[in-house]
Amino acid sequence: MGPEASGVVTSERLIYRFEEGSAGQRRLLGGKGANLAEMTRIGLPVPPGFTITTEACIAYYRLGRKFPEGLAEAIEGQLRALEQKTGKRFGDPELPLLVSVRSGAAVSMPGMMDTILNLGLNDQTVKGLARSTGDARFAYDCYRRFIQMFGDVVLGIPVQRFEAILEERRRAEGVEHDHQVSADGTRRVARAYQDLVARESGRPFPEDPTEQLMMAVRAVFESWNNQRAIVYRQIHKIPADLGTAVNVQAMVFGNMGPDSGTGVLFTRNPATGEKALYGEYLTNAQGEDVVAGIRTPRPIALLSQEMPEVYRELERVSDLLERHYRDIQDIEFTVERGRLYVLQTRAGKRTAQAAVKVAVELAGEGIISRETAVGRVQPEQITKFLHRNVDPEARLNVVATGLPASPGAATGQVVFDADTAEALGNTGHRVILVRPETTPDDIHGIVAAQGILTSRGGMTCHAAIVARGMGKPCVVGCEALRIDLAAREFRVGETVVRQGDVVSIDGGTGQVILGEVPLIDPQLTGEFQTLLAWADHIRRLGVRANADTPEDARKAREFGAEGIGLCRTEHMFMAPDRVPVVQAMILAETAEERRAALDRLLPMQQGDFVEILRAMAGLPVTIRLLDPPLHEFLPNVEELVEELGQLRERLREARAAAGTVRAEDVAGLEQEIRTREKVLRRARALAEFNPMLGHRGCRVGIAYPEIYEMQCRAIFQAAAQLVTEGVDVRPEIMIPLVGIAGELELLRDMVLRVAEDVRSETGVEVPVVVGTMIEVPRACVTADAIAAHAEFFSFGTNDLTQTTFGFSRDDAEAKFLHHYLHRKILRENPFATLDSDGVGALMRMAVEKGRAARPGLKIGICGEHGGDPESIAFCHEAGLDYVSCSPFRVPVARLAAAQAALGRRRDDTV
Amino acid sequence: MGPEASGVVTSERLIYRFEEGSAGQRRLLGGKGANLAEMTRIGLPVPPGFTITTEACIAYYRLGRKFPEGLAEAIEGQLRALEQKTGKRFGDPELPLLVSVRSGAAVSMPGMMDTILNLGLNDQTVKGLARSTGDARFAYDCYRRFIQMFGDVVLGIPVQRFEAILEERRRAEGVEHDHQVSADGTRRVARAYQDLVARESGRPFPEDPTEQLMMAVRAVFESWNNQRAIVYRQIHKIPADLGTAVNVQAMVFGNMGPDSGTGVLFTRNPATGEKALYGEYLTNAQGEDVVAGIRTPRPIALLSQEMPEVYRELERVSDLLERHYRDIQDIEFTVERGRLYVLQTRAGKRTAQAAVKVAVELAGEGIISRETAVGRVQPEQITKFLHRNVDPEARLNVVATGLPASPGAATGQVVFDADTAEALGNTGHRVILVRPETTPDDIHGIVAAQGILTSRGGMTCHAAIVARGMGKPCVVGCEALRIDLAAREFRVGETVVRQGDVVSIDGGTGQVILGEVPLIDPQLTGEFQTLLAWADHIRRLGVRANADTPEDARKAREFGAEGIGLCRTEHMFMAPDRVPVVQAMILAETAEERRAALDRLLPMQQGDFVEILRAMAGLPVTIRLLDPPLHEFLPNVEELVEELGQLRERLREARAAAGTVRAEDVAGLEQEIRTREKVLRRARALAEFNPMLGHRGCRVGIAYPEIYEMQCRAIFQAAAQLVTEGVDVRPEIMIPLVGIAGELELLRDMVLRVAEDVRSETGVEVPVVVGTMIEVPRACVTADAIAAHAEFFSFGTNDLTQTTFGFSRDDAEAKFLHHYLHRKILRENPFATLDSDGVGALMRMAVEKGRAARPGLKIGICGEHGGDPESIAFCHEAGLDYVSCSPFRVPVARLAAAQAALGRRRDDTV
Repeated sequence: MGPEASGVVTSERLIYRFEEGSAGQRRLLGGKGANLAEMTRIGLPVPPGFTITTEACIAYYRLGRKFPEGLAEAIEGQLRALEQKTGKRFGDPELPLLVSVRSGAAVSMPGMMDTILNLGLNDQTVKGLARSTGDARFAYDCYRRFIQMFGDVVLGIPVQRFEAILEERRRAEGVEHDHQVSADGTRRVARAYQDLVARESGRPFPEDPTEQLMMAVRAVFESWNNQRAIVYRQIHKIPADLGTAVNVQAMVFGNMGPDSGTGVLFTRNPATGEKALYGEYLTNAQGEDVVAGIRTPRPIALLSQEMPEVYRELERVSDLLERHYRDIQDIEFTVERGRLYVLQTRAGKRTAQAAVKVAVELAGEGIISRETAVGRVQPEQITKFLHRNVDPEARLNVVATGLPASPGAATGQVVFDADTAEALGNTGHRVILVRPETTPDDIHGIVAAQGILTSRGGMTCHAAIVARGMGKPCVVGCEALRIDLAAREFRVGETVVRQGDVVSIDGGTGQVILGEVPLIDPQLTGEFQTLLAWADHIRRLGVRANADTPEDARKAREFGAEGIGLCRTEHMFMAPDRVPVVQAMILAETAEERRAALDRLLPMQQGDFVEILRAMAGLPVTIRLLDPPLHEFLPNVEELVEELGQLRERLREARAAAGTVRAEDVAGLEQEIRTREKVLRRARALAEFNPMLGHRGCRVGIAYPEIYEMQCRAIFQAAAQLVTEGVDVRPEIMIPLVGIAGELELLRDMVLRVAEDVRSETGVEVPVVVGTMIEVPRACVTADAIAAHAEFFSFGTNDLTQTTFGFSRDDAEAKFLHHYLHRKILRENPFATLDSDGVGALMRMAVEKGRAARPGLKIGICGEHGGDPESIAFCHEAGLDYVSCSPFRVPVARLAAAQAALGRRRDDTV
Repeated sequence: MGPEASGVVTSERLIYRFEEGSAGQRRLLGGKGANLAEMTRIGLPVPPGFTITTEACIAYYRLGRKFPEGLAEAIEGQLRALEQKTGKRFGDPELPLLVSVRSGAAVSMPGMMDTILNLGLNDQTVKGLARSTGDARFAYDCYRRFIQMFGDVVLGIPVQRFEAILEERRRAEGVEHDHQVSADGTRRVARAYQDLVARESGRPFPEDPTEQLMMAVRAVFESWNNQRAIVYRQIHKIPADLGTAVNVQAMVFGNMGPDSGTGVLFTRNPATGEKALYGEYLTNAQGEDVVAGIRTPRPIALLSQEMPEVYRELERVSDLLERHYRDIQDIEFTVERGRLYVLQTRAGKRTAQAAVKVAVELAGEGIISRETAVGRVQPEQITKFLHRNVDPEARLNVVATGLPASPGAATGQVVFDADTAEALGNTGHRVILVRPETTPDDIHGIVAAQGILTSRGGMTCHAAIVARGMGKPCVVGCEALRIDLAAREFRVGETVVRQGDVVSIDGGTGQVILGEVPLIDPQLTGEFQTLLAWADHIRRLGVRANADTPEDARKAREFGAEGIGLCRTEHMFMAPDRVPVVQAMILAETAEERRAALDRLLPMQQGDFVEILRAMAGLPVTIRLLDPPLHEFLPNVEELVEELGQLRERLREARAAAGTVRAEDVAGLEQEIRTREKVLRRARALAEFNPMLGHRGCRVGIAYPEIYEMQCRAIFQAAAQLVTEGVDVRPEIMIPLVGIAGELELLRDMVLRVAEDVRSETGVEVPVVVGTMIEVPRACVTADAIAAHAEFFSFGTNDLTQTTFGFSRDDAEAKFLHHYLHRKILRENPFATLDSDGVGALMRMAVEKGRAARPGLKIGICGEHGGDPESIAFCHEAGLDYVSCSPFRVPVARLAAAQAALGRRRDDTV
């Protein structure tokens, strides 16, 4: 029961000395206090101090903003203990004890009062400080800073008033910087500050150090309920009744002479992960001097010569802290007259490379478990390992920054259309394809380009998705670019970039860089492979890849995919040499004509499947039958209309010039017009109001069974051929867009019939597995009925998200999704991270109903979400069997799946 | 436990005499046997007989197709009893007992063996029959028919072989019809049939009547498992283990002289419902003669003179049967030598008018309850009452038949475009608008026309929906029509109909009729009003109307609507005088410009709301804020492109003729081109890939809050004005397309803010109710979160069906839905009848979650399904509070809602 329920303070102790607490008492001592206590507890040289508990703060508010009984006395008692420990005395004009006062809630909370340093200074003790340091300027500078901090945070006097006094002093002395003000000038400033405080607060600046301390503690308590803190808590849903602790700690000084100093260090190299102290220090200096850039700090290694004792002690402390906190540490220290003090330690920020190396090596050293190591690396970080990157040493001429849509860096000549990209690409040139946005018509250009750059689109626009699928660098939504397709140039600010000019893009940062930049190759280090192997050992979810070509299949296998979860067959229809045959199939007016065209496609598809199944020998390959609407394979209606207009104009001209133009040419033109008219008629007949919800997926297979029959025949003939060669093939046939059990029942019968035909023709036994995509809400709701005909489910969460929300992805991202994210109606773009409340609830329903009807039903996901760590965690919790994602995200998924199994949230990792 | 479980026959009795059974024993005795038993039981003169039970049939199969022990003996015992009862003897050459043998399963099942008549005839008994009837030709005709039926159904000899013999005989005698063959010829045919049977079956035709009977019974048992019966059971999901009963009944003959006869009658007039015997009869004739058309039957009333005793007996029987079966009966009877026999009775088919009158009168007579009366009328039937209809007496020149999309009949001049329809309509002409299909652009033509006729489209195409909404006759999908819009004519067969020619359409039958036809006005009879009043008393569901105009609102109220469930505000934007203002609003480049245009729309919208709220004083009016995407209010892109091309051409010409064209005209053209270019740019910017899933509904309200704010202000100002006048207003604000709780939260705050502004400006208190449509699956799944911000839910099942299935309605109905219905993947078009398994499951979830979060949450439906009886039954079961449908379907919904409350399925009604 908390104090808010009982109405009394439950803990008898309002104060803990550092040596009495521990890291586990975060709630009572706040994060900072618990951490100081922990370091003290394990024997590190931490300046002594004590923590006033959060419960004291809670009691303060319960009592109507009054100190609970005994708190003032307890603080004074602790001060006496601190005096004993330090040999200094609070208010002693010779060797004064100075303290810092800091707030410290259980949850880090910007907006609250932070720090008051040097508390304990007054007109007497400042002289003692000047004497003991031998530096009057320093002592008065400490004093004036203390008065300013105190005036600001305790008394609420605007900082600008203090600044004005200091500025006047600088002007009076004719100097530019604060530290150039003379010792005497600094004393004058301190005096002026005191006057300011007296004037503004209506009473003199408190000279009594104990009174200073009591006022500071009260100010920390009050800051718990200042406006900024309240708003922050509301936004981050932090309970308002936690309260804050107050830490009071003896000051130490690194600027007490040549045997003093201060510095920061990492226990290992945060860039490479190498195991060696890494950092810098300054002698006779205070903490802020190291970062102020006035003196140049020295590499930490030199400290071993300058202060060998201290350096050895630092090595010991680093090792101790790393072992204690089980991670690379970022440490601040101060040396006061030869004595080392640790002021702070925290987990060190690091590069992806260092994160992996450190995690694996810490596990190797027995400091952390392999599970912990796997949890230490953010899945997104490791995409860096898989792509060429810009040399971090290079100087870059960055002209714009867009969205980092697909990681990796690329350099090439700018081109503005897919055909040119292909033409140049095929002749060995490196090109960057620049478009306002891309469409499926640009695929050949994307394939040929080194990288893609668009001025429109979000993280899930066409270019972004396709590029990620291909592992190709891509920057999208770079709105600073004004592209003029007709002029074949883009402008950005004053710069004009024309076709053929060289640019570079960094898909990991979104940067667009003029000219060529040095690239470094990806390094699949041993530690990287080790970490993923450990992840594989931990995870329960299988990881497959979405791959449509033998090259993709091989790449996927190399990255550790355990099969193909989605092999789209429509891309096989899109190949330039096949499009005419596909169009003939679509233009067929009878089932017989259509079959004739399909007979020509059959050997082509069969060849595709042979290579893909061979590449994935021994692993399952889930092949999805044709999904897009047929009109996607025909030219655009508007283009056809324009083309026809031109042809008719040419015909008119040819007829007008009948004397000089041959009759055959006229007849040829007439024939061509008739052909295009037929294509136009068909394209118009197939056009749809909402293609996403139109005649596609299994609806095509039901209306034109001969198309699916051909595809199944191609699959089974390919499989039979490989079985004959001794290859272990595991095709799985996946029916798209099923929403009604009857659809699947009908098509499954068709698959089995074709399989049986091929079996009896070839005499070869091929395993037959039929399943379905689950990508419309009705499939989730009726999953029990559908499972009766399905050996597996695979969630197509792209379409399921579209239909569950009633969002067309293309339209939503272009038109209104930004309003939703901006106004926080949605926390994330649901096409990037699975919407667990809505789409996820339907998925859980499908899993439950599907497995109830068919125990052991295999269930996977093959939408874009299959490569997103947060979505993978959801899939793990929902009980899926596998995720499938683009080959380049397979390592990410392996790691994320392992973290999901460990129950870690991304937030907990470094 | 059934026999299939225990392995033994559970009933000890294999046979029931008619007088031993009753109507309740349908499962044991089959439908026919139970009915014969029931009539016998209540004392009607039914020819005696007995029923071999379905369990005997089940046992037959269990025993490997053998008669169960004792069956043969039991049959013989029953024959003896029958002989006693009739005074005739089986096989007696003087006065032979003849029987009919009929199958009779519990469920009526075409495809099974039906009937063998005259069993018991052989070479001896036929002579006795000839003697006793005095008609040798008749006796031998009975004999040859018996041999043929027996040969066909018992011995499996093809009917064609028998037909060939008869045909040869006709040729030999030089006659055309069977009944013209001489007595001797008929005997020869019978002999030839016997020879045929002996030849085909390898044994002589069985002369022993008992053997004939046993063989016939076995044949009935066998027919339970013939191919046609098995297929029928599979299609209709009838269990295969029910078995069939066999009915054996003494033959009676209506052709035994002038004191014999046969006839059919209805207990009341099936056309008008008038209470008087209605039917016809023939003396000295057999049943088939009445319908054969060779002799003209006489009206039943004449029988009272010809056979007064028999007529009185018939009156008694009719009254008895009607009271017993509690419904109008269709009775077959035979008089044998002055004695009346009832052979069959069943519920009489009747017109809509008769159905209503009979139901109300039967209730008035105390024969049925009011609840039963309400259950007796098919909701669809009563639409006939609400529209003008073709005079049923008229002779019609029907040239084609399409789908009956909206009931009622209309006559007018044919026109082929909406503008002409409007022009003629406004000058007092009656027109029929003929189009391949209609679009929202045709609305003004539909409004002006008497009726709509299209060559394309299904029952839920645009024309059908709009016409039903307006209660206007409509025939769609009339594919026989070849429409030539350019020539302004349509052809159907050889007929050419040109603009201005008069045609009529009957939207209740789908007929297209040349010329004018006499129409009769709808008759809202007293019985009709009475029945609906009873229905209102029974139903639990409220019934509201979808109405966008004051006229619709008044019509809805007249038809009994209890409020408006959906008032669409976009139709108010479509009015010709408002479109320019709406377009100015859309073309606005800043929120200020947009507000200026909205300020001009505000008073117009306010005026609409004043009239609608006034018309529905005292009743709730649910007003949906703007739903369609903004591009729907701009001209079509293709049309704009064409128009711009023409304008530019004109500008070129004007410039070329610079000398003769005034500079102002050139400048005017340039200005117009700039304006159209701006519209085109905006239209292109707003264009979407999938408008159904695009920037519409509340997404528009979130992106452009000023639009929704204007609408709310118009509503509250209208309401305040009426409150001041003392009118009781109950507006309810409905937010469309909500899928995320945050959307509703945001917009609800906006509504409350505007309401408060208006309240403080006017000082008038107006009730504020805010709710949402539930029309995307995510809204159902997260209904608990949404209910926190909603005072009511209204299911938009049109869109919910689209998103749940992933079907675009327009595309599905045009492209693939027919495949689904044809292949029985779907039982019904889910846009016409609610898909209870899928969409319905989501609705149930929404109801449950919504009410769990907010007990008492009001829930309705306002999609097209709200007027469909089967869907209304679902809404009742799912616990909705009301349905809302087009005004003309309100009476249908009232009746259907009552039937739902009675727990009746449509199949149970007459």
